[in-house]
Amino acid sequence: RTYDIAVIAGDGIGKEVMPEGIRVLEAATRRYGFTLKQKWHEFANCDYYARHGRMMPENWKEEIGRPAAIFFGAVGWPDIVPDHISLWGSLLQLRREYDQYVNLRPVRLMEGVPCPLAGRKPGDIDFWVVRENTEGEYSSVGGRMFEGTDREMVLQETIMTRKGVDRILKFAFELAQKRPRKLLTSATKSNGIAITMPYWDERVEAMAKAYPDVGWNKFHIDILTANFVLKPQIFDVVVGSNLFGDILSDLGPACTGTIGIAPSGNINPGGEHPSLFEPVHGSAPDIAGKNVANPIGQIWSAAMMLEYLGETEAAAGIMTAVETVLKQPALRTRDLGGSASTQACGKSIADALS
Amino acid sequence: RTYDIAVIAGDGIGKEVMPEGIRVLEAATRRYGFTLKQKWHEFANCDYYARHGRMMPENWKEEIGRPAAIFFGAVGWPDIVPDHISLWGSLLQLRREYDQYVNLRPVRLMEGVPCPLAGRKPGDIDFWVVRENTEGEYSSVGGRMFEGTDREMVLQETIMTRKGVDRILKFAFELAQKRPRKLLTSATKSNGIAITMPYWDERVEAMAKAYPDVGWNKFHIDILTANFVLKPQIFDVVVGSNLFGDILSDLGPACTGTIGIAPSGNINPGGEHPSLFEPVHGSAPDIAGKNVANPIGQIWSAAMMLEYLGETEAAAGIMTAVETVLKQPALRTRDLGGSASTQACGKSIADALS
Ligand SMILES: CC(C)[C@H](C(=O)O)[C@@H](O)C(=O)O
Ligand SMILES: CC(C)[C@H](C(=O)O)[C@@H](O)C(=O)O
Repeated sequence: RTYDIAVIAGDGIGKEVMPEGIRVLEAATRRYGFTLKQKWHEFANCDYYARHGRMMPENWKEEIGRPAAIFFGAVGWPDIVPDHISLWGSLLQLRREYDQYVNLRPVRLMEGVPCPLAGRKPGDIDFWVVRENTEGEYSSVGGRMFEGTDREMVLQETIMTRKGVDRILKFAFELAQKRPRKLLTSATKSNGIAITMPYWDERVEAMAKAYPDVGWNKFHIDILTANFVLKPQIFDVVVGSNLFGDILSDLGPACTGTIGIAPSGNINPGGEHPSLFEPVHGSAPDIAGKNVANPIGQIWSAAMMLEYLGETEAAAGIMTAVETVLKQPALRTRDLGGSASTQACGKSIADALS
Repeated sequence: RTYDIAVIAGDGIGKEVMPEGIRVLEAATRRYGFTLKQKWHEFANCDYYARHGRMMPENWKEEIGRPAAIFFGAVGWPDIVPDHISLWGSLLQLRREYDQYVNLRPVRLMEGVPCPLAGRKPGDIDFWVVRENTEGEYSSVGGRMFEGTDREMVLQETIMTRKGVDRILKFAFELAQKRPRKLLTSATKSNGIAITMPYWDERVEAMAKAYPDVGWNKFHIDILTANFVLKPQIFDVVVGSNLFGDILSDLGPACTGTIGIAPSGNINPGGEHPSLFEPVHGSAPDIAGKNVANPIGQIWSAAMMLEYLGETEAAAGIMTAVETVLKQPALRTRDLGGSASTQACGKSIADALS
């Protein structure tokens, strides 16, 4: 079994956690007997922008080719490039042009991770956030008028299409169907955002008819975030628009201790385009270059990628190694109350796997 | 001292918590020697809609007249009227037409309230959310196209004006200026929502120049919600757009135990129009009619209203009474682990005040 993977480390702590992700992947290839062919790309980072005035070469699709998956770090270095330019010219462009319309993110309280919520134990919090990843509030339609005057204004469309909404709901209902509790929660705000969100609700209601074995409910996003803190045990699969999914998939991991360990898959379910796996966290300029970033978000993303590639055993092996390390306070990084460096933590996990 | 106030109870638990708010206000008038003239309005509720096909009479502005303030419960009864119709025809219309452009909401961990965050004590969490309340993501511009076909789509504009953004930022910077820590946090999402949110950031940066004594920072909304859970102690005043402020002002109170006690002021700072005070919670159809709702959101809103009217001592008296009752587990409502009814809780607070 040989898989081509594209590797893009990005900026900031992306450059520090990526080598740890690779270290663990390589340990997995040795232990589970498969091969990964890595192709590293030196674009989609702000140094590239500084040299070329753009985040990626014009022929980036050709450069990337047809890998089995893309393994991605984190992008953004606002001292060189404003975030909206660096992100729209890299990660957000990849998601859209590769039609990775599912952004899948687990929220799981792991043994050994100090939980900021009082009295919660591993097992109490265990759900998935399914985020629409190509349209909605992340739109490129809009602009500015009366610039520089008192009448200055900016407009930006939120755009939801039936195709875009239905396909993410279908994915979410099917995921819920495979879970023991079979419960889907929809994030809405139809009381306030009164044009797009009632449409979202309508499509949820229509789609639910095709999945009579799945229970479902909906919460407005404001009270939904409140319930992540107050009653995290009630969630099984949570589906949301691009923005709501973005918020919930940072808040969820925070409720389980840190966003430093959370992974994500940007998935093109049809497989016409490569899917992309990356930690939920960003490039974190404030802690970059200090060898203190938690590499587990990157390493757990490696496990998600192997799962996606069909290397289920290797994926499970990585997660067992992660759990083993998390249980030992001395092996944890700073965000989890430990003092291990990024490299030491990555090495412990690779060792646990070998 | 005599004040005219308009009273609108609304739907669901609004009808149950409003009498408790009034009970406590009346106790305050007796103890502090001022007079409130109440005018109750039987519109802005879904029963009114059922009879008249609209939420408020055409001449609602005349009906309400020129009260010193509006005391408001909660609106919405989705079995009769979809939420987006009932809310846009009542609360959201009042906010906009009375130009109540500030929505001010405290986030404070009170003694006696069980905190869902591990290890946090009263004093650790104490900040304000300042929410833009008239524009932004809550817009009425947009629509649906290709209805009923595969190409169906919905569009909705987010609209931010320089006037709208600058005036809320000014209010927030001035509030921060009065606080001991003098720190303003701006909620943004300029890396993803790349047209409107970079504009918001720009205006924050420009406005900050006029307040050199106020420190400020910004967080993207995703990591900001994470930090409400992980580091609530770092916040002093948090300013956000209509949607981000809505989310943060439910999440914040949840982090302090319950949204059942949180109040809000919908304020027209110039005083050309009446301001409106209401609990943060909604009409809660699931628990309505059971006499179990927490009346403290309504009662704390009464205190905010008195503060606004200049009855500072009475406002402080109500808050002391609330704190006295919260410290006694038996006097608390169900959401706070007690078993007191809505009425019993309201009565305890009125008694503590007298
Ligand atoms: C009921 C709803 C429209 C309202 C809002 O979103 O503004 C509520 O959540 C609030 O926070 O006052
Ligand atoms: C960096 C940013 C544009 C991105 C997003 O908002 O999608 C990130 O927060 C994420 O969740 O992957």
